[in-house]
Amino acid sequence: MIRVVKIGGNVIDDEATLSRFLDKFEQLPAPKVLVHGGGKLATRLCEQLGIQTTMIDGRRVTDKATLDVVTMVYAGLVNKHIVACLQARGVQAIGLSGADGNLLPARRRSPEPIDYGFVGDIVQAGVNVEFLRTLLAAGITPVVCPLTHDEQGSMLNSNADGVASAVAIAASQIDETQLVYCFEKNGVLSDVDDSQSVIPRIDSISYEQLKADGTISKGMLPKIASSMKAIESGVGAVVIKHADNLLNDLGTVIVK
Amino acid sequence: MIRVVKIGGNVIDDEATLSRFLDKFEQLPAPKVLVHGGGKLATRLCEQLGIQTTMIDGRRVTDKATLDVVTMVYAGLVNKHIVACLQARGVQAIGLSGADGNLLPARRRSPEPIDYGFVGDIVQAGVNVEFLRTLLAAGITPVVCPLTHDEQGSMLNSNADGVASAVAIAASQIDETQLVYCFEKNGVLSDVDDSQSVIPRIDSISYEQLKADGTISKGMLPKIASSMKAIESGVGAVVIKHADNLLNDLGTVIVK
Repeated sequence: MIRVVKIGGNVIDDEATLSRFLDKFEQLPAPKVLVHGGGKLATRLCEQLGIQTTMIDGRRVTDKATLDVVTMVYAGLVNKHIVACLQARGVQAIGLSGADGNLLPARRRSPEPIDYGFVGDIVQAGVNVEFLRTLLAAGITPVVCPLTHDEQGSMLNSNADGVASAVAIAASQIDETQLVYCFEKNGVLSDVDDSQSVIPRIDSISYEQLKADGTISKGMLPKIASSMKAIESGVGAVVIKHADNLLNDLGTVIVK
Repeated sequence: MIRVVKIGGNVIDDEATLSRFLDKFEQLPAPKVLVHGGGKLATRLCEQLGIQTTMIDGRRVTDKATLDVVTMVYAGLVNKHIVACLQARGVQAIGLSGADGNLLPARRRSPEPIDYGFVGDIVQAGVNVEFLRTLLAAGITPVVCPLTHDEQGSMLNSNADGVASAVAIAASQIDETQLVYCFEKNGVLSDVDDSQSVIPRIDSISYEQLKADGTISKGMLPKIASSMKAIESGVGAVVIKHADNLLNDLGTVIVK
Protein backbone atom coordinates (compact mmCIF):
# COMPACT_ATOMS: atom_id res chain seq x y z
CA MET A 1 0.00 0.00 0.00
CA ILE A 2 1.19 3.50 -0.89
CA ARG A 3 0.65 6.20 1.72
CA VAL A 4 0.42 9.84 0.68
CA VAL A 5 0.66 12.09 3.74
CA LYS A 6 -0.04 15.81 3.69
CA ILE A 7 1.11 18.20 6.42
CA GLY A 8 -0.02 21.76 6.76
CA GLY A 9 1.32 24.98 8.15
CA ASN A 10 0.81 24.11 11.79
CA VAL A 11 3.38 21.31 11.46
CA ILE A 12 5.82 23.28 9.30
CA ASP A 13 5.77 26.49 11.30
CA ASP A 14 7.04 24.93 14.52
CA GLU A 15 10.41 23.17 14.47
CA ALA A 16 9.63 20.88 17.45
CA THR A 17 6.28 19.84 15.94
CA LEU A 18 7.91 19.16 12.58
CA SER A 19 10.69 17.11 14.16
CA ARG A 20 8.15 15.05 16.16
CA PHE A 21 6.13 14.49 13.00
CA LEU A 22 9.17 13.45 10.93
CA ASP A 23 10.14 10.93 13.65
CA LYS A 24 6.75 9.31 13.04
CA PHE A 25 6.84 9.66 9.25
CA GLU A 26 10.20 7.86 9.26
CA GLN A 27 8.51 4.86 10.92
CA LEU A 28 5.72 4.68 8.36
CA PRO A 29 6.42 1.77 6.01
CA ALA A 30 7.44 2.66 2.44
CA PRO A 31 6.27 3.27 -0.28
CA LYS A 32 5.23 6.70 0.95
CA VAL A 33 4.99 10.30 -0.26
CA LEU A 34 5.00 13.48 1.83
CA VAL A 35 3.20 16.59 0.59
CA HIS A 36 3.74 19.84 2.46
CA GLY A 37 2.30 23.32 2.43
CA GLY A 38 4.25 26.50 2.89
CA GLY A 39 3.01 27.70 6.23
CA LYS A 40 3.43 31.28 7.25
CA LEU A 41 6.96 31.55 5.90
CA ALA A 42 5.86 32.80 2.47
CA THR A 43 3.71 35.53 4.01
CA ARG A 44 6.60 36.50 6.30
CA LEU A 45 9.08 36.74 3.40
CA CYS A 46 6.57 38.79 1.40
CA GLU A 47 6.34 41.19 4.34
CA GLN A 48 10.13 41.46 4.58
CA LEU A 49 10.33 42.23 0.85
CA GLY A 50 7.46 44.72 0.94
CA ILE A 51 5.20 42.54 -1.21
CA GLN A 52 1.56 42.83 -0.27
CA THR A 53 -0.21 39.53 0.47
CA THR A 54 -3.78 39.26 -0.82
CA MET A 55 -5.87 36.23 0.09
CA ILE A 56 -9.28 35.58 -1.51
CA ASP A 57 -11.28 32.66 -0.08
CA GLY A 58 -8.14 31.38 1.62
CA ARG A 59 -6.19 31.36 -1.64
CA ARG A 60 -3.11 33.48 -2.23
CA VAL A 61 -3.29 35.92 -5.14
CA THR A 62 0.01 35.20 -6.87
CA ASP A 63 1.57 37.97 -8.94
CA LYS A 64 5.09 37.45 -10.38
CA ALA A 65 6.86 38.72 -7.25
CA THR A 66 4.72 36.46 -5.05
CA LEU A 67 5.34 33.49 -7.36
CA ASP A 68 9.08 34.02 -6.89
CA VAL A 69 8.58 34.12 -3.12
CA VAL A 70 6.52 30.92 -2.95
CA THR A 71 8.97 29.19 -5.31
CA MET A 72 11.82 30.17 -2.98
CA VAL A 73 9.98 29.24 0.22
CA TYR A 74 8.09 26.09 -0.85
CA ALA A 75 10.61 24.47 -3.24
CA GLY A 76 13.70 25.91 -1.55
CA LEU A 77 13.57 26.61 2.16
CA VAL A 78 10.77 24.32 3.35
CA ASN A 79 11.28 21.45 0.91
CA LYS A 80 15.05 21.15 1.37
CA HIS A 81 14.76 21.45 5.14
CA ILE A 82 12.31 18.54 5.23
CA VAL A 83 14.41 16.48 2.80
CA ALA A 84 17.60 17.07 4.82
CA CYS A 85 15.77 16.14 8.07
CA LEU A 86 14.40 12.94 6.49
CA GLN A 87 17.81 12.01 5.08
CA ALA A 88 19.23 12.48 8.60
CA ARG A 89 16.66 9.89 9.70
CA GLY A 90 17.73 7.45 6.99
CA VAL A 91 14.74 8.06 4.70
CA GLN A 92 15.82 8.18 1.02
CA ALA A 93 13.82 11.36 0.37
CA ILE A 94 13.91 13.61 -2.68
CA GLY A 95 12.17 16.94 -2.98
CA LEU A 96 9.91 17.70 -5.92
CA SER A 97 7.81 20.48 -7.30
CA GLY A 98 5.22 19.71 -9.94
CA ALA A 99 7.70 20.80 -12.64
CA ASP A 100 10.26 18.18 -11.60
CA GLY A 101 9.77 15.10 -13.76
CA ASN A 102 6.67 16.86 -15.11
CA LEU A 103 4.95 15.39 -12.04
CA LEU A 104 2.09 17.89 -11.90
CA PRO A 105 1.19 19.71 -15.11
CA ALA A 106 -1.41 22.42 -14.52
CA ARG A 107 -3.44 25.05 -16.28
CA ARG A 108 -3.22 28.62 -15.18
CA ARG A 109 -6.61 29.52 -13.80
CA SER A 110 -8.77 31.82 -15.89
CA PRO A 111 -8.56 35.47 -14.77
CA GLU A 112 -12.39 35.53 -14.72
CA PRO A 113 -14.22 35.99 -12.37
CA ILE A 114 -11.21 36.45 -10.04
CA ASP A 115 -7.64 36.89 -11.30
CA TYR A 116 -5.52 34.83 -8.91
CA GLY A 117 -2.42 35.37 -11.07
CA PHE A 118 0.04 32.48 -11.31
CA VAL A 119 -2.28 29.90 -9.76
CA GLY A 120 -2.57 26.48 -11.37
CA ASP A 121 -5.29 23.86 -11.47
CA ILE A 122 -3.73 20.42 -11.82
CA VAL A 123 -4.46 18.46 -15.02
CA GLN A 124 -5.16 15.09 -13.36
CA ALA A 125 -4.87 13.13 -16.61
CA GLY A 126 -1.39 14.59 -17.11
CA VAL A 127 0.04 13.67 -13.69
CA ASN A 128 3.20 11.65 -14.38
CA VAL A 129 2.31 8.23 -12.95
CA GLU A 130 5.33 6.55 -14.59
CA PHE A 131 7.74 8.98 -12.96
CA LEU A 132 6.12 8.32 -9.58
CA ARG A 133 6.30 4.58 -10.22
CA THR A 134 10.04 4.82 -11.07
CA LEU A 135 10.78 6.68 -7.85
CA LEU A 136 8.73 4.46 -5.55
CA ALA A 137 10.12 1.28 -7.20
CA ALA A 138 13.63 2.58 -6.44
CA GLY A 139 12.77 2.96 -2.75
CA ILE A 140 12.66 6.74 -2.98
CA THR A 141 10.29 8.83 -0.83
CA PRO A 142 9.12 11.91 -2.76
CA VAL A 143 8.59 15.11 -0.75
CA VAL A 144 6.26 17.28 -2.83
CA CYS A 145 5.73 21.02 -2.44
CA PRO A 146 2.56 22.80 -3.65
CA LEU A 147 3.95 24.16 -6.89
CA THR A 148 2.94 23.01 -10.36
CA HIS A 149 3.90 24.26 -13.83
CA ASP A 150 2.17 25.23 -17.06
CA GLU A 151 4.48 23.10 -19.29
CA GLN A 152 5.48 26.33 -21.04
CA GLY A 153 8.21 27.39 -18.66
CA SER A 154 6.30 28.96 -15.79
CA MET A 155 5.83 27.65 -12.28
CA LEU A 156 2.33 27.93 -10.81
CA ASN A 157 1.09 28.08 -7.23
CA SER A 158 -1.36 25.32 -6.29
CA ASN A 159 -3.30 24.31 -3.22
CA ALA A 160 -1.41 21.73 -1.12
CA ASP A 161 -4.55 19.69 -0.29
CA GLY A 162 -5.24 19.45 -4.02
CA VAL A 163 -1.63 18.45 -4.74
CA ALA A 164 -1.89 15.65 -2.16
CA SER A 165 -5.17 14.48 -3.69
CA ALA A 166 -3.73 14.54 -7.24
CA VAL A 167 -0.63 12.60 -6.19
CA ALA A 168 -2.76 10.03 -4.32
CA ILE A 169 -5.04 9.53 -7.33
CA ALA A 170 -1.94 8.96 -9.51
CA ALA A 171 -0.48 6.57 -6.89
CA SER A 172 -3.73 4.58 -6.89
CA GLN A 173 -2.90 3.61 -10.50
CA ILE A 174 0.27 1.96 -9.15
CA ASP A 175 -1.03 0.24 -6.01
CA GLU A 176 -3.71 0.54 -3.34
CA THR A 177 -3.33 4.03 -1.90
CA GLN A 178 -4.26 5.76 1.34
CA LEU A 179 -4.30 9.55 1.58
CA VAL A 180 -3.69 11.03 5.03
CA TYR A 181 -4.38 14.68 5.79
CA CYS A 182 -2.58 15.67 8.99
CA PHE A 183 -3.72 18.88 10.61
CA GLU A 184 -4.13 20.51 14.01
CA LYS A 185 -7.41 18.82 14.98
CA ASN A 186 -8.18 15.23 15.87
CA GLY A 187 -10.33 14.70 12.77
CA VAL A 188 -13.66 15.91 11.45
CA LEU A 189 -15.53 17.05 14.56
CA SER A 190 -19.29 16.81 15.08
CA ASP A 191 -18.94 19.71 17.56
CA VAL A 192 -16.21 22.19 16.63
CA ASP A 193 -15.85 23.17 20.30
CA ASP A 194 -15.25 19.58 21.43
CA SER A 195 -11.90 18.22 20.26
CA GLN A 196 -12.98 14.72 21.27
CA SER A 197 -16.12 14.67 19.08
CA VAL A 198 -14.34 13.01 16.16
CA ILE A 199 -16.62 11.47 13.50
CA PRO A 200 -14.89 8.11 12.98
CA ARG A 201 -16.20 7.44 9.47
CA ILE A 202 -17.76 9.38 6.62
CA ASP A 203 -19.08 7.87 3.40
CA SER A 204 -20.80 9.50 0.45
CA ILE A 205 -24.22 9.17 2.11
CA SER A 206 -23.26 10.56 5.52
CA TYR A 207 -21.22 13.27 3.75
CA GLU A 208 -24.36 14.67 2.15
CA GLN A 209 -26.17 14.56 5.52
CA LEU A 210 -23.29 16.30 7.34
CA LYS A 211 -23.20 19.00 4.67
CA ALA A 212 -26.97 19.45 4.80
CA ASP A 213 -27.14 19.77 8.58
CA GLY A 214 -24.15 22.16 8.65
CA THR A 215 -21.80 19.88 10.62
CA ILE A 216 -19.26 20.17 7.82
CA SER A 217 -18.80 23.79 6.85
CA LYS A 218 -16.30 26.49 5.98
CA GLY A 219 -12.68 25.31 6.27
CA MET A 220 -13.53 21.62 6.30
CA LEU A 221 -15.61 21.73 3.10
CA PRO A 222 -12.78 21.91 0.53
CA LYS A 223 -10.73 19.32 2.43
CA ILE A 224 -13.59 16.82 2.48
CA ALA A 225 -14.65 17.68 -1.08
CA SER A 226 -11.13 16.87 -2.32
CA SER A 227 -11.18 13.71 -0.14
CA MET A 228 -14.42 12.58 -1.79
CA LYS A 229 -12.92 13.32 -5.21
CA ALA A 230 -9.87 11.20 -4.33
CA ILE A 231 -12.10 8.33 -3.17
CA GLU A 232 -14.16 8.49 -6.34
CA SER A 233 -10.98 8.51 -8.45
CA GLY A 234 -9.36 5.36 -7.09
CA VAL A 235 -7.88 6.19 -3.68
CA GLY A 236 -8.87 3.46 -1.20
CA ALA A 237 -9.34 5.63 1.87
CA VAL A 238 -8.68 9.15 3.07
CA VAL A 239 -7.88 9.75 6.73
CA ILE A 240 -8.09 13.19 8.36
CA LYS A 241 -6.21 13.26 11.66
CA HIS A 242 -3.94 15.11 14.04
CA ALA A 243 -0.27 15.03 12.96
CA ASP A 244 0.63 13.45 16.32
CA ASN A 245 -1.64 10.50 15.46
CA LEU A 246 0.07 9.56 12.19
CA LEU A 247 0.94 6.05 13.39
CA ASN A 248 -2.29 5.14 15.18
CA ASP A 249 -5.89 4.53 14.14
CA LEU A 250 -7.39 7.78 15.44
CA GLY A 251 -9.05 10.32 13.16
CA THR A 252 -11.79 10.40 10.57
CA VAL A 253 -11.77 7.81 7.77
CA ILE A 254 -13.46 8.81 4.54
CA VAL A 255 -14.55 5.98 2.28
CA LYS A 256 -16.72 5.63 -0.81
CA MET B 1 28.69 8.89 -22.83
CA ILE B 2 27.39 10.97 -19.91
CA ARG B 3 27.78 14.74 -20.19
CA VAL B 4 27.89 16.86 -17.04
CA VAL B 5 27.52 20.53 -17.96
CA LYS B 6 28.06 23.38 -15.53
CA ILE B 7 26.78 26.91 -16.12
CA GLY B 8 27.76 29.91 -14.06
CA GLY B 9 26.30 33.23 -13.09
CA ASN B 10 26.78 34.89 -16.46
CA VAL B 11 24.31 32.45 -18.03
CA ILE B 12 21.83 32.48 -15.14
CA ASP B 13 21.72 36.24 -14.61
CA ASP B 14 20.47 37.03 -18.10
CA GLU B 15 17.18 35.52 -19.26
CA ALA B 16 18.02 35.71 -22.99
CA THR B 17 21.43 34.07 -22.45
CA LEU B 18 19.86 31.33 -20.32
CA SER B 19 17.16 30.68 -22.89
CA ARG B 20 19.76 30.46 -25.69
CA PHE B 21 21.83 28.08 -23.60
CA LEU B 22 18.86 25.84 -22.74
CA ASP B 23 17.96 25.61 -26.45
CA LYS B 24 21.42 24.13 -26.98
CA PHE B 25 21.36 21.95 -23.84
CA GLU B 26 18.08 20.46 -25.06
CA GLN B 27 19.86 19.29 -28.23
CA LEU B 28 22.70 17.61 -26.32
CA PRO B 29 22.13 13.84 -26.40
CA ALA B 30 21.13 12.22 -23.08
CA PRO B 31 22.30 10.99 -20.61
CA LYS B 32 23.19 14.44 -19.33
CA VAL B 33 23.32 16.43 -16.11
CA LEU B 34 23.14 20.20 -15.68
CA VAL B 35 24.84 21.87 -12.70
CA HIS B 36 24.14 25.54 -12.06
CA GLY B 37 25.44 28.23 -9.76
CA GLY B 38 23.35 30.92 -8.13
CA GLY B 39 24.52 34.01 -9.90
CA LYS B 40 23.93 37.40 -8.40
CA LEU B 41 20.39 36.61 -7.25
CA ALA B 42 21.50 35.43 -3.80
CA THR B 43 23.51 38.59 -3.22
CA ARG B 44 20.56 40.69 -4.39
CA LEU B 45 18.12 38.92 -2.05
CA CYS B 46 20.58 39.31 0.84
CA GLU B 47 20.67 43.03 0.11
CA GLN B 48 16.87 43.25 0.04
CA LEU B 49 16.69 41.44 3.40
CA GLY B 50 19.45 43.53 4.96
CA ILE B 51 21.83 40.56 5.27
CA GLN B 52 25.43 41.54 4.76
CA THR B 53 27.33 39.54 2.12
CA THR B 54 30.91 38.64 2.99
CA MET B 55 33.12 37.00 0.38
CA ILE B 56 36.56 35.61 1.25
CA ASP B 57 38.67 34.37 -1.69
CA GLY B 58 35.54 34.35 -3.86
CA ARG B 59 33.64 32.17 -1.42
CA ARG B 60 30.49 33.28 0.36
CA VAL B 61 30.62 33.31 4.17
CA THR B 62 27.38 31.52 4.99
CA ASP B 63 25.74 32.27 8.34
CA LYS B 64 22.27 30.80 9.06
CA ALA B 65 20.42 33.72 7.45
CA THR B 66 22.60 33.47 4.34
CA LEU B 67 22.13 29.68 4.21
CA ASP B 68 18.37 30.25 4.13
CA VAL B 69 18.80 32.75 1.29
CA VAL B 70 21.00 30.49 -0.86
CA THR B 71 18.64 27.55 -0.19
CA MET B 72 15.72 29.68 -1.39
CA VAL B 73 17.55 31.08 -4.41
CA TYR B 74 19.59 28.06 -5.59
CA ALA B 75 17.17 25.18 -4.82
CA GLY B 76 14.00 27.25 -5.24
CA LEU B 77 14.05 30.17 -7.64
CA VAL B 78 16.92 29.28 -9.99
CA ASN B 79 16.55 25.49 -9.94
CA LYS B 80 12.81 25.42 -10.56
CA HIS B 81 13.03 28.08 -13.25
CA ILE B 82 15.59 25.99 -15.14
CA VAL B 83 13.60 22.78 -14.61
CA ALA B 84 10.36 24.41 -15.84
CA CYS B 85 12.18 25.83 -18.90
CA LEU B 86 13.71 22.42 -19.72
CA GLN B 87 10.35 20.68 -19.29
CA ALA B 88 8.86 23.23 -21.69
CA ARG B 89 11.52 22.05 -24.18
CA GLY B 90 10.58 18.41 -23.66
CA VAL B 91 13.57 17.51 -21.48
CA GLN B 92 12.55 15.22 -18.59
CA ALA B 93 14.42 17.30 -16.02
CA ILE B 94 14.28 17.07 -12.23
CA GLY B 95 15.92 19.51 -9.85
CA LEU B 96 18.16 18.28 -7.08
CA SER B 97 20.18 19.62 -4.21
CA GLY B 98 22.83 17.44 -2.64
CA ALA B 99 20.35 16.46 0.09
CA ASP B 100 17.88 15.00 -2.42
CA GLY B 101 18.53 11.29 -2.72
CA ASN B 102 21.58 11.90 -0.52
CA LEU B 103 23.30 12.80 -3.79
CA LEU B 104 26.06 14.92 -2.27
CA PRO B 105 26.92 14.31 1.39
CA ALA B 106 29.41 16.85 2.71
CA ARG B 107 31.36 17.82 5.79
CA ARG B 108 30.97 21.28 7.21
CA ARG B 109 34.30 22.99 6.79
CA SER B 110 36.40 23.49 9.91
CA PRO B 111 36.03 27.01 11.37
CA GLU B 112 39.85 27.24 11.43
CA PRO B 113 41.64 29.17 9.97
CA ILE B 114 38.58 30.90 8.41
CA ASP B 115 35.02 30.29 9.60
CA TYR B 116 32.94 30.14 6.42
CA GLY B 117 29.86 29.05 8.37
CA PHE B 118 27.53 26.58 6.66
CA VAL B 119 29.93 25.68 3.86
CA GLY B 120 30.36 22.03 2.92
CA ASP B 121 33.19 20.05 1.35
CA ILE B 122 31.76 17.14 -0.60
CA VAL B 123 32.62 13.62 0.61
CA GLN B 124 33.42 12.13 -2.82
CA ALA B 125 33.27 8.51 -1.58
CA GLY B 126 29.74 9.20 -0.30
CA VAL B 127 28.30 10.60 -3.53
CA ASN B 128 25.24 8.49 -4.36
CA VAL B 129 26.24 6.83 -7.63
CA GLU B 130 23.31 4.38 -7.51
CA PHE B 131 20.77 7.19 -7.22
CA LEU B 132 22.37 8.91 -10.22
CA ARG B 133 22.35 5.61 -12.12
CA THR B 134 18.62 5.11 -11.37
CA LEU B 135 17.75 8.58 -12.67
CA LEU B 136 19.86 8.41 -15.83
CA ALA B 137 18.62 4.89 -16.62
CA ALA B 138 15.05 6.23 -16.40
CA GLY B 139 15.85 8.90 -19.00
CA ILE B 140 15.81 11.67 -16.40
CA THR B 141 18.07 14.73 -16.67
CA PRO B 142 19.16 15.92 -13.20
CA VAL B 143 19.52 19.66 -12.69
CA VAL B 144 21.79 20.09 -9.68
CA CYS B 145 22.18 23.24 -7.58
CA PRO B 146 25.27 23.94 -5.47
CA LEU B 147 23.87 22.86 -2.11
CA THR B 148 25.00 19.81 -0.16
CA HIS B 149 24.02 18.51 3.27
CA ASP B 150 25.76 17.27 6.41
CA GLU B 151 23.58 14.11 6.72
CA GLN B 152 22.47 15.43 10.12
CA GLY B 153 19.66 17.66 8.94
CA SER B 154 21.47 20.76 7.76
CA MET B 155 21.94 22.02 4.23
CA LEU B 156 25.40 23.32 3.35
CA ASN B 157 26.59 25.76 0.70
CA SER B 158 29.13 24.35 -1.76
CA ASN B 159 31.07 25.62 -4.74
CA ALA B 160 29.25 24.89 -8.03
CA ASP B 161 32.47 23.99 -9.92
CA GLY B 162 33.22 21.44 -7.18
CA VAL B 163 29.65 20.07 -7.34
CA ALA B 164 30.00 19.58 -11.11
CA SER B 165 33.33 17.83 -10.64
CA ALA B 166 31.94 15.55 -7.89
CA VAL B 167 28.91 14.62 -9.99
CA ALA B 168 31.11 13.94 -13.04
CA ILE B 169 33.45 11.70 -11.00
CA ALA B 170 30.41 9.75 -9.74
CA ALA B 171 29.01 9.54 -13.30
CA SER B 172 32.32 8.13 -14.54
CA GLN B 173 31.59 5.05 -12.39
CA ILE B 174 28.46 4.52 -14.53
CA ASP B 175 29.79 5.28 -18.03
CA GLU B 176 32.43 7.30 -19.85
CA THR B 177 31.90 10.90 -18.73
CA GLN B 178 32.72 14.32 -20.09
CA LEU B 179 32.61 17.39 -17.85
CA VAL B 180 31.90 20.72 -19.57
CA TYR B 181 32.42 24.03 -17.81
CA CYS B 182 30.55 26.77 -19.63
CA PHE B 183 31.54 30.32 -18.82
CA GLU B 184 31.85 33.76 -20.38
CA LYS B 185 35.18 33.20 -22.17
CA ASN B 186 36.09 31.05 -25.14
CA GLY B 187 38.31 28.75 -23.07
CA VAL B 188 41.60 28.95 -21.20
CA LEU B 189 43.38 31.88 -22.85
CA SER B 190 47.14 32.18 -23.35
CA ASP B 191 46.65 35.97 -23.39
CA VAL B 192 43.82 37.21 -21.15
CA ASP B 193 43.41 40.28 -23.36
CA ASP B 194 42.94 38.21 -26.52
CA SER B 195 39.64 36.30 -26.54
CA GLN B 196 40.85 34.29 -29.53
CA SER B 197 44.01 32.96 -27.82
CA VAL B 198 42.33 29.76 -26.67
CA ILE B 199 44.70 26.98 -25.60
CA PRO B 200 43.11 23.99 -27.37
CA ARG B 201 44.50 21.28 -25.08
CA ILE B 202 46.01 21.02 -21.62
CA ASP B 203 47.42 17.84 -20.09
CA SER B 204 49.12 17.29 -16.75
CA ILE B 205 52.52 18.23 -18.18
CA SER B 206 51.47 21.44 -19.93
CA TYR B 207 49.33 22.31 -16.87
CA GLU B 208 52.47 22.49 -14.71
CA GLN B 209 54.22 24.64 -17.34
CA LEU B 210 51.25 27.02 -17.68
CA LYS B 211 51.08 27.37 -13.90
CA ALA B 212 54.84 27.95 -13.66
CA ASP B 213 54.95 30.64 -16.35
CA GLY B 214 51.88 32.41 -14.93
CA THR B 215 49.58 31.81 -17.94
CA ILE B 216 47.06 30.14 -15.61
CA SER B 217 46.47 32.30 -12.59
CA LYS B 218 43.88 33.68 -10.22
CA GLY B 219 40.29 32.83 -11.24
CA MET B 220 41.29 30.04 -13.62
CA LEU B 221 43.42 28.17 -11.07
CA PRO B 222 40.62 26.57 -9.01
CA LYS B 223 38.64 25.68 -12.16
CA ILE B 224 41.59 23.92 -13.76
CA ALA B 225 42.68 22.34 -10.46
CA SER B 226 39.21 20.79 -10.07
CA SER B 227 39.34 19.76 -13.74
CA MET B 228 42.65 17.96 -13.17
CA LYS B 229 41.17 16.27 -10.09
CA ALA B 230 38.19 15.09 -12.16
CA ILE B 231 40.51 13.73 -14.88
CA GLU B 232 42.60 11.89 -12.31
CA SER B 233 39.44 10.43 -10.72
CA GLY B 234 37.95 8.81 -13.80
CA VAL B 235 36.38 11.58 -15.90
CA GLY B 236 37.45 11.10 -19.54
CA ALA B 237 37.79 14.76 -20.49
CA VAL B 238 37.00 18.21 -19.18
CA VAL B 239 36.11 20.98 -21.61
CA ILE B 240 36.18 24.66 -20.67
CA LYS B 241 34.25 26.77 -23.16
CA HIS B 242 31.86 29.63 -23.85
CA ALA B 243 28.22 28.74 -23.14
CA ASP B 244 27.34 29.64 -26.74
CA ASN B 245 29.74 26.91 -27.94
CA LEU B 246 28.10 24.02 -26.07
CA LEU B 247 27.35 22.07 -29.24
CA ASN B 248 30.60 22.65 -31.16
CA ASP B 249 34.24 21.65 -30.67
CA LEU B 250 35.60 25.03 -29.58
CA GLY B 251 37.17 25.57 -26.17
CA THR B 252 39.97 24.07 -24.10
CA VAL B 253 40.08 20.31 -23.61
CA ILE B 254 41.77 19.06 -20.46
CA VAL B 255 43.01 15.50 -20.53
CA LYS B 256 45.23 13.33 -18.33
